[in-house]
Amino acid sequence: MDPQECRQLLGTARVARLATVDARGVPHLVPVAFLLAGDEAFTAVDAKPKRTTRLKRLDNIRATGRACLLADSYDEDWSRLWWVRADASASVLAPGRQAAHAVGLLAAKYEQYASAPPAGPVIALGVIRWTGWAASPGEGGVA
Amino acid sequence: MDPQECRQLLGTARVARLATVDARGVPHLVPVAFLLAGDEAFTAVDAKPKRTTRLKRLDNIRATGRACLLADSYDEDWSRLWWVRADASASVLAPGRQAAHAVGLLAAKYEQYASAPPAGPVIALGVIRWTGWAASPGEGGVA
Repeated sequence: MDPQECRQLLGTARVARLATVDARGVPHLVPVAFLLAGDEAFTAVDAKPKRTTRLKRLDNIRATGRACLLADSYDEDWSRLWWVRADASASVLAPGRQAAHAVGLLAAKYEQYASAPPAGPVIALGVIRWTGWAASPGEGGVA
Repeated sequence: MDPQECRQLLGTARVARLATVDARGVPHLVPVAFLLAGDEAFTAVDAKPKRTTRLKRLDNIRATGRACLLADSYDEDWSRLWWVRADASASVLAPGRQAAHAVGLLAAKYEQYASAPPAGPVIALGVIRWTGWAASPGEGGVA
């Protein structure tokens, strides 16, 4: 897949998985709601129950500035599998206009956010490299 | 969730996402078919088309010996969300009895492997820590 196909396909996904790494090189994974806009993606810490407000994903991004975002489609017919990966720089946005704009984009994508927009920190990803894979040409709605 | 609930839930998943890290601390993500047996998990490089046989996931594991495996269930009703994460040590098994045993376990789980067992290297994960989350008590089939 070319980058434009990757953007299209990731843009349709409702959930992705965010990998980050701590300062010692230990990987961490969490599923996230996200919004893709070109080569930028945003995800926000929301009101879903958390055990702590000091989230590992935020500590990791502040420590290393790197992330990887993946969306995939599983099907028992393995000829229909596809995935898209975005290798990205990552930062935690300070409260302000950019973060508020990202929250607005997230609320426009997810009606679940309409009544309760995410109040926590916003993570911004800048895609460095796109990689996409499909078991068969044409899967994922892209040629 | 306690570790036993995490094992039960991850054991039911048909796909998980494997995060690894390279020697420079850059994260990498790929969806994987996998088999969980207690606190061990196995995934194998299979015949699904790859662009190269020198896979990043293998290089990363050989370099750092760490991985993170995540399974999650997405639903538009966010009260039904759940995920399970296994922080793990990771190694690439040398061809031999242990790798063949793992391939047998994978083929028993996935009928897609029955006619074409994975021929590539087997990755073994040793779970160091279990973390599980559910938006509502009782989601994921566990109490």
